[in-house]
Amino acid sequence: MSATFAALWAEIAPIGRTAGGGYLRYAFSEPELALRDWFRAQAARRELAVTEDGNGNLFAWWGSPWGPGTVLTGSHFDSVPHGGGYDGPLGIVSAFLAVDEMRARGVTPARPLAVAAFVEEEGGRFGVPCLGSRLLTGAITPGKAAALRDRDGVTFSAALGADPVGALDELAHVSAVVELHIEQGKALVDVDAPVGVASAIWPHGRWRMDFTGDGDHAGTTRMADRHDPMLTFAYTVLAANKEARLAGAHATVGRVEAEPNATNAIPSRVRGWLDARAADSATLDRLVEAVVKRAVDRAGRDGTQVNVEAESVSPEVAFDTDLAARLAALLGGVPILPTGAGHDAGVLSGHAPTAMLFVRNPTGVSHAPAEHAPDADCATGVTALATVLEELTCR
Amino acid sequence: MSATFAALWAEIAPIGRTAGGGYLRYAFSEPELALRDWFRAQAARRELAVTEDGNGNLFAWWGSPWGPGTVLTGSHFDSVPHGGGYDGPLGIVSAFLAVDEMRARGVTPARPLAVAAFVEEEGGRFGVPCLGSRLLTGAITPGKAAALRDRDGVTFSAALGADPVGALDELAHVSAVVELHIEQGKALVDVDAPVGVASAIWPHGRWRMDFTGDGDHAGTTRMADRHDPMLTFAYTVLAANKEARLAGAHATVGRVEAEPNATNAIPSRVRGWLDARAADSATLDRLVEAVVKRAVDRAGRDGTQVNVEAESVSPEVAFDTDLAARLAALLGGVPILPTGAGHDAGVLSGHAPTAMLFVRNPTGVSHAPAEHAPDADCATGVTALATVLEELTCR
Repeated sequence: MSATFAALWAEIAPIGRTAGGGYLRYAFSEPELALRDWFRAQAARRELAVTEDGNGNLFAWWGSPWGPGTVLTGSHFDSVPHGGGYDGPLGIVSAFLAVDEMRARGVTPARPLAVAAFVEEEGGRFGVPCLGSRLLTGAITPGKAAALRDRDGVTFSAALGADPVGALDELAHVSAVVELHIEQGKALVDVDAPVGVASAIWPHGRWRMDFTGDGDHAGTTRMADRHDPMLTFAYTVLAANKEARLAGAHATVGRVEAEPNATNAIPSRVRGWLDARAADSATLDRLVEAVVKRAVDRAGRDGTQVNVEAESVSPEVAFDTDLAARLAALLGGVPILPTGAGHDAGVLSGHAPTAMLFVRNPTGVSHAPAEHAPDADCATGVTALATVLEELTCR
Repeated sequence: MSATFAALWAEIAPIGRTAGGGYLRYAFSEPELALRDWFRAQAARRELAVTEDGNGNLFAWWGSPWGPGTVLTGSHFDSVPHGGGYDGPLGIVSAFLAVDEMRARGVTPARPLAVAAFVEEEGGRFGVPCLGSRLLTGAITPGKAAALRDRDGVTFSAALGADPVGALDELAHVSAVVELHIEQGKALVDVDAPVGVASAIWPHGRWRMDFTGDGDHAGTTRMADRHDPMLTFAYTVLAANKEARLAGAHATVGRVEAEPNATNAIPSRVRGWLDARAADSATLDRLVEAVVKRAVDRAGRDGTQVNVEAESVSPEVAFDTDLAARLAALLGGVPILPTGAGHDAGVLSGHAPTAMLFVRNPTGVSHAPAEHAPDADCATGVTALATVLEELTCR
């Protein structure tokens, strides 16, 4: 099984990989389109009919599309820029292999099974994570999604080739969702288990912080005369880190853009994005409030302005407790654990009983080239997913 | 004269201007090439022969190119990104108009006069300011300049269309250099004078600071497990500001690039550029040393690494004292003042007696769209430049 996994994995491993080992698989970019073609070929090889939902999401069907009791599995192809190759694709590759294993076991599903590839899960191109599953479930309106722009000004509609259609009524026929994903921490390493089941996703969000001041010459402007937004930005980065530590939460500023971004010019604007997550919504709200307050205080001292806007905020997702317990028991008592990462499964969990399987990640690193899961653990993940899908489609 | 200036200025004002009012006139970009064409047309209109020096610099000649006692004037066309339209072009437009005024006065120069357009003065595209004048004077080797790359990986050689040739022996024939430039502070406003003469350029330089850490997932990585280079960068930005204030010097971090620059990823690398300037080299050295020490200390606490490399360092330029006094007296006792900004004239000052004329800037703003000089002051600058060039070419 480990060799079978490795062989299929090798087909997609080079797609979108950069010289530094990280991946550039933005939604609808050339590599992501190649992965979509690969998806269609895999479906054809297994005689699974492929449908699109008018929102950029693909589904490969074993059984009647959107028939009663449909079970959804799969994940996404897109990566964060220069991220790892497992986050997303592992769930899709494992789903196709789980279909093979179910067939090898002689399983005949009583309900339709769909392998899904959701679009723009990372929000790396259009800024809103889980955009495909949000559209499918109606969590974002088609109009709002249509107008989202990438860094080059291309709209989501233009990239999709049409306006998205939004929520599908057929979603009501879904009886269960299971997404398999590489773990993005070291909890499974700590308990020495190759596979686990998710309990919850921390509430989380991203906030765009615009710091504006007065652009001027770096050489000739007296320090006392400056209104430099880079200072306010820098202070806010450190404040976010301190406040997150105090709150037992997570805060990160991983993206920054300065204007004009010239060595010899005081910037007129610095834009930073705050990613914040906490175990509960009250803590998350307090954290963001504290960071914004400190940013505004500092802006007052720097003579700059700061404006903070939420780009996306996801409340806590508690996965179906009964389903998680049932699947963990089915898999021989594997551990049940929470995660700080958002997933399409989190968006879908409001519409059908939803579960996630995690596969062990030896370093815990994710969203970076070192992200990795051993073939043997991935094979264990495929077997576990096949067992779970058999249970959900047959019983 | 004010109307004459305004008319010629209007010819170039739209070239490379963006919707925000700032200019994008990178070396060899479409707008800068358009300005070079305009330069040739202006030279032709005045029957001035144009030569190139094999380094990207243009010269329009009144008299025999590089003949004995050549007097150089002019400036540069390139801008910092989204900078003002006066920094550079004012010196070239004023030079052509000064030729007209000298001719109107019936002046017949005894020595050749060249109007120069130096390439890549801002270092906005290839990172090394005054690249054209550095090549011409041998302050940078052609091999090193050839290999410089812009943000898209294009080399200077590729942009130039050939390898640069480097220092010209003919430079030995230059008897004087005069660059007219908009003032980039408010010293002339303070003393209520439209034109002044430069005494010195502060020593200054730019240092590339590479902060490296461990890229990882922003949602799932515990705060205690992080090695986030954005924190070290942010601390260093604030430290540079504090140290510069303590030293009575200038320090700016106006350019930053994060990798992978994704909202939901802890960066693996943040690159920031430090621009530092001081009234004397000892102060500048102490300032940079103090900033680097604080960056390294903080990197130790963050578990990150920092590497600082000087991209260019320019020692103090004391312009020719006798020449400055002579020109200030010739212009009726205009003020003599130092500046924190680097200029091609500073690079050339090691090779010939060199002077600069500054034109009043009401707001003192430079390297930003608000950079501006009134037409009347610009006209006064043209007259002053004509008087100075007449003195230098005839006496």
